[in-house]
Amino acid sequence: MLFKIPPMKTLLAKPVVDGMKKNLSSRIANFHQHSGRVPKLAVVLVGDHPASVIYTTKKGHTAVELGMKHETIKLAASASPQEVHEKIKFLNQDPSVDGILIQRPLPSGFSEEEVLYWVSPEKDVDAFHPENTGRLVLGLPCFKPCTPAGVMKLLDHYGINPSGKIACVIGRSSIVGKPMAALLLQANATVIQCHSKTPHLPSVTSQAELLIVAAGKAGLVDASYVREGAIVVDVGIHRTTEGKICGDVVFDSVAKKASALTPVPGSVGPMTIIMLMENTVWAAERREAARAR
Amino acid sequence: MLFKIPPMKTLLAKPVVDGMKKNLSSRIANFHQHSGRVPKLAVVLVGDHPASVIYTTKKGHTAVELGMKHETIKLAASASPQEVHEKIKFLNQDPSVDGILIQRPLPSGFSEEEVLYWVSPEKDVDAFHPENTGRLVLGLPCFKPCTPAGVMKLLDHYGINPSGKIACVIGRSSIVGKPMAALLLQANATVIQCHSKTPHLPSVTSQAELLIVAAGKAGLVDASYVREGAIVVDVGIHRTTEGKICGDVVFDSVAKKASALTPVPGSVGPMTIIMLMENTVWAAERREAARAR
Repeated sequence: MLFKIPPMKTLLAKPVVDGMKKNLSSRIANFHQHSGRVPKLAVVLVGDHPASVIYTTKKGHTAVELGMKHETIKLAASASPQEVHEKIKFLNQDPSVDGILIQRPLPSGFSEEEVLYWVSPEKDVDAFHPENTGRLVLGLPCFKPCTPAGVMKLLDHYGINPSGKIACVIGRSSIVGKPMAALLLQANATVIQCHSKTPHLPSVTSQAELLIVAAGKAGLVDASYVREGAIVVDVGIHRTTEGKICGDVVFDSVAKKASALTPVPGSVGPMTIIMLMENTVWAAERREAARAR
Repeated sequence: MLFKIPPMKTLLAKPVVDGMKKNLSSRIANFHQHSGRVPKLAVVLVGDHPASVIYTTKKGHTAVELGMKHETIKLAASASPQEVHEKIKFLNQDPSVDGILIQRPLPSGFSEEEVLYWVSPEKDVDAFHPENTGRLVLGLPCFKPCTPAGVMKLLDHYGINPSGKIACVIGRSSIVGKPMAALLLQANATVIQCHSKTPHLPSVTSQAELLIVAAGKAGLVDASYVREGAIVVDVGIHRTTEGKICGDVVFDSVAKKASALTPVPGSVGPMTIIMLMENTVWAAERREAARAR
């Protein structure tokens, strides 16, 4: 062999998260010094969907660990949309609350469109409000949806610059696929957006120097989808029948071809949570700056 | 030769516009019968930029031809942002006005971000308000930016369905490139978005079965950018030094390779104007329906 293949890089969240935690802790301390209070995240949990309870608890723990306040408002699965909306109106008005998120999924009976408008744009740390989506696409300052923003931070930490690269996003959800494409475009990538209606998916995805998989299908992507030397980010998270956690990507297969790959768990998941914390701190800083003006 | 190459189709706006005019005239008559008034479009023109004056006049004529009311509010090039904003606030409140647009470009001294928020979302027939952009991307009912929506209507008229196709958009402006990609994605195309930072542009664009050129560069795209048999839409409009109108596409070169192509002028331009009329009629219908509830 004439040249040595460099080893595949595993893009772990831990070093990125550790750095961000340090930075956020110091921003929170600074915020406290200036405002006499600490940022507060309020999470509204309707019902007791087991995964939602786990996620909500994790978010609360991280907030507290960083020195923020946190409150989970628990409502019964039988709570009416009106009740939930009233609760959120109250939180929108509460001056001690900086960030509000409504844990998904909501029970049936909630209008997905209406709910998007409930959290006021200044406290919308999940970045689901249509105005936030618009600002993101237009490149105006705004909250960035946590998962795609977390992917961008991860890439940045590992020195991966999307500019000038062919990037492909599999998936077009409002939460991940669409904002991911918007952020990559802003970072000057040429962006290909694929989805369930894309014919011959591997022939499209295997062009990508940077492949983001957010299909929501366990084990969809194997080596045949991947260009030699590509950087592959796996946004999927699934639990197998044997109770193992896996992603949309078949790790062992893709690892032989990619130059860098995110493991599941240990990468996009933790990045999502830390981005939520950053959004909450930014919400607090912005609110305080607006008050000072 | 074993097979006959079908002739290239020229995608003229005229038959589409004629059909839409008929449809809009009858919607306007119907609206008049129910509400006792006709829809009204207000155009705010700051200064006397010659192209802006031409466009504004054309919009007014078309509105009147269809049976709508129209008013151009002319302000001096020296008008302050405050003056223009006050005028638009007045129009937002005026119950007889259904659609408002601010003719671009504005003189320097206006904050592009602030101006996006001036026209209230219910009257925002140019679809520039960030909330409108967000709703478009999220697939919620909203005004659609006139040029990309016009392109979709044109394709639809000629029986071109983007679903399952590889579509490529050259350009990423807020007015055309980004919303064009959003609409194609919604129509189930696999969308590639290219721009000035895309390396080897022809190698990317020549994959596209449907190529939308909105680069704003006269004569950028020749046959080398185009896949054999592709459908090519030229959004560009430029005036040559000899006073001729041309697009971003070199028509004669691309015509030899494409299966369908839009001429400049006579295609995307007239589609843009008629979409503005449709948006204004829809604005009036929506406002009236909201009042009736």
